[in-house]
Amino acid sequence: MSTKMKEGKKWNVPCSHMAERSINPIRNLVDSMHITPNPDKDMIALSIGDPTIFGNLPYCETAENAVIEAIKGRKSNGYTASVGYESARTAIAEYSSTPTSEVSAKDVILCSGCSSSLDLCISCLANPGQNILIPLPGFSIYKTLAESLGIEVRHYKLLPERSWEVDLDHIEELIDDNTACIIVNNPSNPCGSVYDKQHLQDILEICQHNKLPVIADEIYEHFVFSGAKYYPLASLTDSVPILSCSGLTKRFLVPGWRMGWVIVHDRNDILKDIKRGLVKLSQRILGPNTLVQAAIPTILKQTPSDFFTETLVHMKNNADTFYSRLSAINGLTPVMPHGAMYMMVGIDIKKFPDFPTDIEFVETLVKEQSVFCLPASCFQYPNFFRIVLTVPETKVDEACNRIQEFCKKYYAAGNSMNGHA
Amino acid sequence: MSTKMKEGKKWNVPCSHMAERSINPIRNLVDSMHITPNPDKDMIALSIGDPTIFGNLPYCETAENAVIEAIKGRKSNGYTASVGYESARTAIAEYSSTPTSEVSAKDVILCSGCSSSLDLCISCLANPGQNILIPLPGFSIYKTLAESLGIEVRHYKLLPERSWEVDLDHIEELIDDNTACIIVNNPSNPCGSVYDKQHLQDILEICQHNKLPVIADEIYEHFVFSGAKYYPLASLTDSVPILSCSGLTKRFLVPGWRMGWVIVHDRNDILKDIKRGLVKLSQRILGPNTLVQAAIPTILKQTPSDFFTETLVHMKNNADTFYSRLSAINGLTPVMPHGAMYMMVGIDIKKFPDFPTDIEFVETLVKEQSVFCLPASCFQYPNFFRIVLTVPETKVDEACNRIQEFCKKYYAAGNSMNGHA
Repeated sequence: MSTKMKEGKKWNVPCSHMAERSINPIRNLVDSMHITPNPDKDMIALSIGDPTIFGNLPYCETAENAVIEAIKGRKSNGYTASVGYESARTAIAEYSSTPTSEVSAKDVILCSGCSSSLDLCISCLANPGQNILIPLPGFSIYKTLAESLGIEVRHYKLLPERSWEVDLDHIEELIDDNTACIIVNNPSNPCGSVYDKQHLQDILEICQHNKLPVIADEIYEHFVFSGAKYYPLASLTDSVPILSCSGLTKRFLVPGWRMGWVIVHDRNDILKDIKRGLVKLSQRILGPNTLVQAAIPTILKQTPSDFFTETLVHMKNNADTFYSRLSAINGLTPVMPHGAMYMMVGIDIKKFPDFPTDIEFVETLVKEQSVFCLPASCFQYPNFFRIVLTVPETKVDEACNRIQEFCKKYYAAGNSMNGHA
Repeated sequence: MSTKMKEGKKWNVPCSHMAERSINPIRNLVDSMHITPNPDKDMIALSIGDPTIFGNLPYCETAENAVIEAIKGRKSNGYTASVGYESARTAIAEYSSTPTSEVSAKDVILCSGCSSSLDLCISCLANPGQNILIPLPGFSIYKTLAESLGIEVRHYKLLPERSWEVDLDHIEELIDDNTACIIVNNPSNPCGSVYDKQHLQDILEICQHNKLPVIADEIYEHFVFSGAKYYPLASLTDSVPILSCSGLTKRFLVPGWRMGWVIVHDRNDILKDIKRGLVKLSQRILGPNTLVQAAIPTILKQTPSDFFTETLVHMKNNADTFYSRLSAINGLTPVMPHGAMYMMVGIDIKKFPDFPTDIEFVETLVKEQSVFCLPASCFQYPNFFRIVLTVPETKVDEACNRIQEFCKKYYAAGNSMNGHA
């Protein structure tokens, strides 16, 4: 317990442990890198998980009109219940219910973006000193949120050679009496993996056996390429309680609107305390923007399916191009994604003796080729990089050309160890 | 440190200490009250601090058009820096700077409503086990936020007989080595008080002497009636560091838009750590709705002054009517507000022998007269009630008539002790 020191009445205002512990690994790493593009080549940023930055993926007019209607209607400017408008929660419940996992408005809590949903769930399930299990590689916010609250994170391994399936044995090893919950992210950022039914059931079995509730980060729900199928985790269990986090951000291409939600799936009244706790926590901040809340029923019910299909076809085409082009490059091993907006690419780092790690590899790639990929050290997963699939198609080929030229220049055929598997 | 108990592998998912400690006193008290209006009289709710509910205080078209422009422009849907758009922060810095307290964009952090701003400041300044000083009576969110984080709150007294000025001696008594900061709310909810320059300087002197930083809750900035003058706390000191919290909520009449901000006033580099910490904390949730962010420059620069004047004239008229009518009622002692949206009314509870406290007084007032005032027990300040000034003028007289009839019925002239002073 730190006290303010006031010898001689001097000012001394340290920041709290919580603030000190709020560490964003992506921001930290990227800020410390030397990102100086080649002035002769236009920059191609494959690093940012924001679908809006290139302008090639506009959000749907249905959403635009619904928000305009909400503001012109002038009835959606006041405080709501801290869990959000009943109409919005009803629409989300209908949108998210499946025959085997039906929910209603009372199971839904609106939050300021999916990050805020995750924050609510983690804060409600775990105490300082407890631990939660998170995927490796995985989205960095889990660690940021948990550690800021003094909650330990334990990383369970994903297996690139099995399309990033969970290492189930590793999960079992990590669980102890202080484990409060497990976070399952499907489809996945940064992997683009989409788990099949059997694998999800295997994960659920571990949870059931260990009596571990799940935070299902399903912000990329339905965001899967043709050929893959998305199963909401809650639809596959009638015993494991699940807090599913999602929102408008990804599927509806409006991250800035900050509209997320938590859905409590709890068919056996296991989460009675947690439901009460989530409502209490929601009262700390009082809910997300009401104009977007009011637009939710229209957005969820009336967005034409073409809108989603077009986005997904675009992602899939980019994924196919990246995969075939990067597979052909000596020293790189892309892992084909089946959903979300990302692809992970392994670097056989021993074959690039100029670069000790993915970080220097990426720095030099920017410096020479003005192509910026996110080093997977950001996800504590060295010797991979993550690329986004949201870039315009015309840039994909150019990016691949440059990466190819770069790898050819630095690849040293002699060293044959695979550095990442 | 609680661990999950798993005897016999039964499900047991308790909610966290943080969730348990997130207590909203208003919600708790109101939910436990018997609120059954008289079916023969239409309900007049004087209880809710939401200026939008009666429809008599529409927000300005400038704001409406600015948000519509932002959405139609289609450039404000992506992630921003977690502290918000530079353009919005620049506009807020200009809007908030004074000749003696100049700030720039780098001193501003956008948040999801002023509650979130307060959360950021409290989380950044204090650790569990430390204490912060908050006003009594005062807005309940301070207590909710701090206690959920394990931070102790200590209430310093406001003096109704001095228009709710701070009891300065009491502040001095409460401060110890574990005091992290003091929250000053001016203009005040629930009191409607507006402090003069000298009183604010007296408060600052205590802070300077004790080296205590201030969280200035200035969400009602400029929301003062003719005759009163609002001084931003930071404009009156060049030595005490101040985190000023405000937003669009009250002055611009759009609480649901959830747009708040923190402005760091730190002319002597005392808050270097805190500034860094606030940015780190902002990365947990990633900022408020970008459509409103994008609209901020227009809203702050172009809202016509008539808009503010009209609102304030309406509030002042209501305050005058309530004050003169309620002053004339035996057993009630209203305290004239000078700003914000509220008036506190003392109940000489001993003169109403049917009611042990303000809670029963209010319950029966609803039951018989369908007038709902907020019992000030919600603010841990028994034997007052708070009324809102945002009601339509036509309802003010009717509400006063009913309160008068009610008090006449229950007033017992014999008991002459004043229960609240």
